[in-house]
Amino acid sequence: MTLDDIYKARYVLNKVIRTTNLIPASRLNPEADIWLKPECLQLTGSFKVRGAYYRISQLTPEEKKRGVVACSAGNHAQGVALGATQAGVKSIICLPEGAPISKVEATRRYGAEICLVPGVYDDAYRRALELRDEMGYAFVHPFDDENVIAGQGTIGLELLDQLPDVDVVVVPIGGGGLASGIVYAIKSLNPKVEVWGVQAAGAPSMFNSIRNKTVMALDSVNTIADGIAVKKPGSLTYDICSRYLDGVVTVTEDEICAAILALIEQQKMVAEGAGAVSVAAAMFNKVPVKGRKAICVVSGGNVDVTILNRVINRGLVQGGRICTLTLELEDKPGQLVAVSNIIASIGGNVVNVRHERNDDSERVTDCQLTLKVETRNAEHIEQIRQALRDAGFKLI
Amino acid sequence: MTLDDIYKARYVLNKVIRTTNLIPASRLNPEADIWLKPECLQLTGSFKVRGAYYRISQLTPEEKKRGVVACSAGNHAQGVALGATQAGVKSIICLPEGAPISKVEATRRYGAEICLVPGVYDDAYRRALELRDEMGYAFVHPFDDENVIAGQGTIGLELLDQLPDVDVVVVPIGGGGLASGIVYAIKSLNPKVEVWGVQAAGAPSMFNSIRNKTVMALDSVNTIADGIAVKKPGSLTYDICSRYLDGVVTVTEDEICAAILALIEQQKMVAEGAGAVSVAAAMFNKVPVKGRKAICVVSGGNVDVTILNRVINRGLVQGGRICTLTLELEDKPGQLVAVSNIIASIGGNVVNVRHERNDDSERVTDCQLTLKVETRNAEHIEQIRQALRDAGFKLI
Repeated sequence: MTLDDIYKARYVLNKVIRTTNLIPASRLNPEADIWLKPECLQLTGSFKVRGAYYRISQLTPEEKKRGVVACSAGNHAQGVALGATQAGVKSIICLPEGAPISKVEATRRYGAEICLVPGVYDDAYRRALELRDEMGYAFVHPFDDENVIAGQGTIGLELLDQLPDVDVVVVPIGGGGLASGIVYAIKSLNPKVEVWGVQAAGAPSMFNSIRNKTVMALDSVNTIADGIAVKKPGSLTYDICSRYLDGVVTVTEDEICAAILALIEQQKMVAEGAGAVSVAAAMFNKVPVKGRKAICVVSGGNVDVTILNRVINRGLVQGGRICTLTLELEDKPGQLVAVSNIIASIGGNVVNVRHERNDDSERVTDCQLTLKVETRNAEHIEQIRQALRDAGFKLI
Repeated sequence: MTLDDIYKARYVLNKVIRTTNLIPASRLNPEADIWLKPECLQLTGSFKVRGAYYRISQLTPEEKKRGVVACSAGNHAQGVALGATQAGVKSIICLPEGAPISKVEATRRYGAEICLVPGVYDDAYRRALELRDEMGYAFVHPFDDENVIAGQGTIGLELLDQLPDVDVVVVPIGGGGLASGIVYAIKSLNPKVEVWGVQAAGAPSMFNSIRNKTVMALDSVNTIADGIAVKKPGSLTYDICSRYLDGVVTVTEDEICAAILALIEQQKMVAEGAGAVSVAAAMFNKVPVKGRKAICVVSGGNVDVTILNRVINRGLVQGGRICTLTLELEDKPGQLVAVSNIIASIGGNVVNVRHERNDDSERVTDCQLTLKVETRNAEHIEQIRQALRDAGFKLI
């Protein structure tokens, strides 16, 4: 692997991909000068198309004629599908049968043939290797491949072009392909720029491997950032990341959710969990951005709206924007009206009510009332709780 | 008002605002070639800073020394606050006391002095006019002002620069300032380009006025698109819109929600209701975009996450991604397990369960079970319902 490979990838990708311009993000961390590299706005909604297309472009004419195969239920699938279609090559993507319909449809829309495999990811992976062996398709690995890494590395070149005096670059790490490409490009050109990797605390495979100085596999991964939920780094990506990165840190699920929500509210940008870990690390000072010019690579935006819904809900609860109140009521007329009036008078907006006889309460006549209320902040919630207590209601 | 005013505004705004580049949006309407003008990525999250800053820049030195006053709980407040701060002018924003904390804080953060007025919007508006008269502050109207219109019109110049062969431009209308500026700029330079206005069906003030050929006020407005919930167009904006626009159409609340959701899922972009009405009109062919090159102006992105939450929920239900199942159960052990097993075996993900004795059922022993289930699509829901029926359960 040389810098030449990355420059060559840039030349090849030039007409195929979108140039994503840096976006200033001054409010994410007031003590730092933060910029975002929005690869969520890249074709297919993630950076993956860069590596996939470059890998496919380097196949021999015979290989191109046969086609490519890959295994993924996520961004890699869509990157390979679009990359192959743009190169005029047939692509087959193996997915586990339970993969979300939306991902299957997106992959098909970019021109891939879909192979749904009974079982889980590992079964789909095995089927992809079988197809490679049986049909002679070229297998496109999601990260542990020199050409794939060179393709992702084009982002590193762009960053130095777009913000020449950057101090720190913060990059999400799953298998390590994106981080390897970016750190290799940047350290080759300007070793003074720090490059930090970020993983989800629920999937710290590269973090653990670098700490233990050897490639290690996790038994299981558990994170909202499914795009970087990788059990084991590649050997090539481990070599590059362990040699060149200034460090790898982890962020919690709550920090990832907070970053997704901040991007929505402050930047009007939709990032997936994997794409938001870099922002989380900068927001919560997990990486040394204070007083410095930092770029967070937002690697993708393909978040399922079901997940987005949960993230927003969690953020609303944490921010005191929604609360659930449970009261013990005497089972007599007018109680619900009284409670509703108090809440409304203080500006709370009741969105959900559950009113039921409570078999476990001390007195058999008692009822339990549960209300979901839209509120302004934690202080506002406390005002409402106090007013209910002042009126003689018993809050649980 | 002349084209010169708009060119002058462009010159003045040049160093103050962000240039927002067009974003291709091929999937929003497959029969059209749609581009988005993302003013949600503008400073303050909406186009309003353009008109506000230009208006303030045209004050006399004496007026600038005294300061400006405006009344708004939304994007105009933030536009005036930032515009004044950048011009080194003091700004006072009057808001009704019940305005969302988040909006108040955003406005204060951009440097405005906040004047919270007891009562509703009209009370705050009266207070702003009082302050103008008592203190000699210049009043910055949100739309019915030549300089404000000229500032918004700079978007029209940018559109013709950025996509010279555009056929149709689609613009949200509240009071009409944005539409007036854009249509004036575009028709002055290239009358062949069609410009259409879009209003929420719940606030069709300009729509009604143009249809009735006179400025008319609505008694009330009711829409999720609070940024364009305006009861009465300006007289200046009515004159320009009625003379130059090719037409005004309305979109429903469901169409607005669908547009917000499509922008999130397909474009990774967060738009507020007001900003999404142009996209809704293009998605649902309310404006003649078929087979043509169209730009939808996404005027702002300051959507409250509480609203976003509701929009996503509604979208999930409509798309069959969440469903609520209610069953009548015999009140005997093991029923909940049996139901859960059936749903899980077909790939449904139960997120919420309510299990209660139903006092209204035919037999006193009966229970009612309500489940909220994450599903793939409408077909998947029907599969689950059928499997439950096949197992002898009674769905309500």
